[in-house]
Amino acid sequence: MTSPSATPDRYPYQDQPIWSKSEKAIARKAFDAALGRELHEVIQEAKKMASRIKEPSDLWDLEHYLTQRRKEIDRKYDYRYSQLTQVFGRLLHEKRLREEELRGLREDKLKLIRSLAKFLAEDAA
Amino acid sequence: MTSPSATPDRYPYQDQPIWSKSEKAIARKAFDAALGRELHEVIQEAKKMASRIKEPSDLWDLEHYLTQRRKEIDRKYDYRYSQLTQVFGRLLHEKRLREEELRGLREDKLKLIRSLAKFLAEDAA
Repeated sequence: MTSPSATPDRYPYQDQPIWSKSEKAIARKAFDAALGRELHEVIQEAKKMASRIKEPSDLWDLEHYLTQRRKEIDRKYDYRYSQLTQVFGRLLHEKRLREEELRGLREDKLKLIRSLAKFLAEDAA
Repeated sequence: MTSPSATPDRYPYQDQPIWSKSEKAIARKAFDAALGRELHEVIQEAKKMASRIKEPSDLWDLEHYLTQRRKEIDRKYDYRYSQLTQVFGRLLHEKRLREEELRGLREDKLKLIRSLAKFLAEDAA
């Protein structure tokens, strides 16, 4: 039988690794931790920018900064399992995530994640 | 001759009072003063909101506040002479402008300005 369900470690309809229950827990924790740290950074920067406002243009600079960061964070933190290895690869590259936080994911996923991080590092060089 | 230029105190092409040089100076000063005060208020409020940010949602509340205020200010402070009596009427109604700041404008303009302020006050009641 050649039914897609014969390959149990893959979604039948796309070439994506499946995530076990324990992997999902690890992924969620790592994802939330990185997002929390990034949001904390934005909060600190916004407070600093606000405290330094002197001119109306500083006000609109703050608005622009917040809008840009919100959009960037919305795009970057995409918790669909189909996107998660890419998300983690980028976060690893940006040093927003340490590899230890992903410990417990299957080696095939870690390999994909490291490989994207490496690609982005080389691409930026 | 019935040419529109026969009515020197009106634009030939629309039913708008013209603004003399001294009226323009008074208008500019009053306009800038009200705008400056309103921007100062927004700066103070933004600093206060920023200093109180605890959660990411507070951050996006600040962004939303700034975007709304910027749009509202852009709409409200329209320095076209064709709009200026309406602008001043609204500012008077909002107590962002004192009538003394308009002293020196011709009585026909002051009448229009007061009349809009009065209408807005009654409309809001």
